This record gives sequence, structure tokens and C-alpha cells, in this order.
Amino acid sequence: MARGRRPGDADTREQIAEAARLRFAELGFDRTTLRSVATDAGVDPALISHYFGSKAELFATVVDLPVDPSVVIPRIVAGDPGTAGERLAVFALDLLTDEAKRTRIVSIVRSVTSAPESAAIIRERLTAELLAPLARAIGADQPEYRGSLLMSQIVGLTLARAIVRIEPLASADPRSVAASVAPALQHYLTGPVRPPDDAGAPGSQDGSPS
Amino acid sequence: MARGRRPGDADTREQIAEAARLRFAELGFDRTTLRSVATDAGVDPALISHYFGSKAELFATVVDLPVDPSVVIPRIVAGDPGTAGERLAVFALDLLTDEAKRTRIVSIVRSVTSAPESAAIIRERLTAELLAPLARAIGADQPEYRGSLLMSQIVGLTLARAIVRIEPLASADPRSVAASVAPALQHYLTGPVRPPDDAGAPGSQDGSPS
Repeated sequence: MARGRRPGDADTREQIAEAARLRFAELGFDRTTLRSVATDAGVDPALISHYFGSKAELFATVVDLPVDPSVVIPRIVAGDPGTAGERLAVFALDLLTDEAKRTRIVSIVRSVTSAPESAAIIRERLTAELLAPLARAIGADQPEYRGSLLMSQIVGLTLARAIVRIEPLASADPRSVAASVAPALQHYLTGPVRPPDDAGAPGSQDGSPS
Repeated sequence: MARGRRPGDADTREQIAEAARLRFAELGFDRTTLRSVATDAGVDPALISHYFGSKAELFATVVDLPVDPSVVIPRIVAGDPGTAGERLAVFALDLLTDEAKRTRIVSIVRSVTSAPESAAIIRERLTAELLAPLARAIGADQPEYRGSLLMSQIVGLTLARAIVRIEPLASADPRSVAASVAPALQHYLTGPVRPPDDAGAPGSQDGSPS
């Protein structure tokens, strides 16, 4: 039924995107081929490149971020900057508690770790669209660096809690985890963070016996 | 030449282990079969189960931890407990800077995320043999919970820095990253961490405008 549509139709683009979403969700990044997406969407494979570029770009485009930065950032920035880490922690843990969102996040993190070269795009997006702007909105210096540090903790938490399930973290009460992780996130948001190219010693390592 | 050995020989066990190490390193956990390991080692597949149990157990046994807890723990515990997070951060970043060790760590983290159900064993081991004992040696309460929180940050850091390479974290000077991550690790080691089953609110969320 989709066959009669002209290429260039906005619907065609959406059909490709929807077929890609389903394939990526089902098979993951590696095992999804552009040819199979094209077949599912009833279009010529060349159209996919036309609309989306490479497979990695298609993936990055159709896998929506599980959160909307324009909603989340103001919510975390509102209030005392000294407790923003707590609000971010609660938000991240709530996401992992929501069944549908957790499934999407887990699928993204899995793709990211199994096909790092392509899925880096997703993580760059999460950092560039959500976490760095968050640090910037709070008025912190080095927002990009802080964003990538926040990312390392949040992705690690997702892995430990929802994918590999390391106990007792995996089964811990979400509010308890949020409270325990909040100071780390707060540090990355507003604490002293040394510039990435500053190679000075991190502190007094020398006085300790070995 | 190994064919003449009796089953039960300690050499047979080591031959299986060595064949498994090579296969896992080359193909990863999923694509390695016990049959191929048996062929490489010149033994009957049943011998593998006899010595090692399941494929997951074989994997956990032959993939050595990239660190020796009996060496690392005393080094991090020695000195002021208030700077142990810094020593742990420097140690973790040094590991990722060492080419050979980084390769092994990356291989372990990749297996862990691509085959979570089996490789959870590795992460449990890292937590149970290294990070929880570290928290215990420092005299912290809830060492297992602290160990799993430390794990979440260290694995996330490994992913961001060495696997997916999120910038500017990936290219940042290791000493700078260690200094920036140290307070988070210090918090997990000796800061206030709420028990995992304590469901109280993490703080004052209500006063902030929305």
C-alpha cells in the first residue's frame, strides 16, 4: 500500500524510520542491515542513504533519546544549585524504574557497548544535548567535560543496576541509590573539576608508605 | 604431543584453560563454543565440564582479573583514609593507560555488556574480591553496597574513556581525570551512603518550583 508514494514524500522518510526502529530494537545495531530496513519500508535502499546517510546516522536519528532535554533541564536547574545532583540522581533512577523507559535505555546502552564506533553518536548526543547543557545551565565551568563525567557515572549506574545487575546495587531501593549517588553527580555538576589537559599531580601521593 | 596425557593431569586442566583464554580473547564469550575449546586443547568436551562446569564458569575462571587484590588493596588503604579515593582513582586511570592491561579490561567490559547473564560473574568477582574488600579494609560500613557503587563508576569510566570514547573525557590527561573522579570514589568509599533498603526521600525535593 505504501508502494504508490513518491520518493521525497515525508511519509517515506517516516516509514523508513519506523522500519529501522523496529529492526534495531529487535536485532540490535550489528545485525540490522539497510537492505532489510528498505524491504520492510517498501523502498529502494538508496533512499535510506538519501534521507539518513550511513547506518550509524540512521541509528542515531531514529533511536530517540529516552528523555526530552527541554523538559528535564529546567526541572533539574530549578531550585538550589547545591542540590541539583540530587534532582538529577532521582530523575535517573526514576527513568530506570519506569519499565518502558528502562527497556529503551537498556537497548541503547547495549547497542552502545556492542557497537561502540557507531553508537558513540548516541552517547555524544546524550552528552551534548542533555548533560553538557545541564552543567551549562547551572553555570558551571567546563560544561562539556562535566557532561562526559556525568555520563560515565550514569551509564555505569545503568549497567550495574539494569543490565549486569550487580548486587546489592541492582535491588536497592531507588530512593536509597539516588541519595547515595547524588553527591557524586553533584561533584561533577558543581564541584572542583580540573581542566582535562591539566597534567599536574592529583594530590599528595608521596607521603604514604608503600 | 599432548595426546598421551592422562585425563586428570593438572596439565590437561591448564591446556583447556589456555585454549579457552585464546578463544574468548579472539571471539568473545558468545561465539566461543566448548567444542572448539576442546578441539584446541585436544581433549574430550566432557572433560571441560568436569574441570570447569559451564561455559560461564570456564570464562570466569580463565579470565584473570586485571589486578591482584592482595597487592592493590594495601596500597590504597595505606595512608590517610580521606585520600583513598584519590589513590583508587589514580590506580584505575593508570590501568587504563597501560596498553596491555587496558586491552584486557576492555575485553572484559565488552564481554560483560554483550553477555551480561554470564559475565556478571566477572563483575561480581571484581566487586567481591577487590572493591568490597577495599571498602572493608578502610573500615567503611556496608562494604558490599559501597563496592557495587564503586564498580558502577569505574566501569562507566572505562566505557566512556576506553571503549565508546566520549570527549573530552576520553582524551583528557589521566592525572586530571583521576583528580576529577577522586571525590566521587572517595564518597563511595567513606562518605554517607544510605542503606540499600532505606526508602526514605533523598532530601527536600518539594520546595523547588516546577
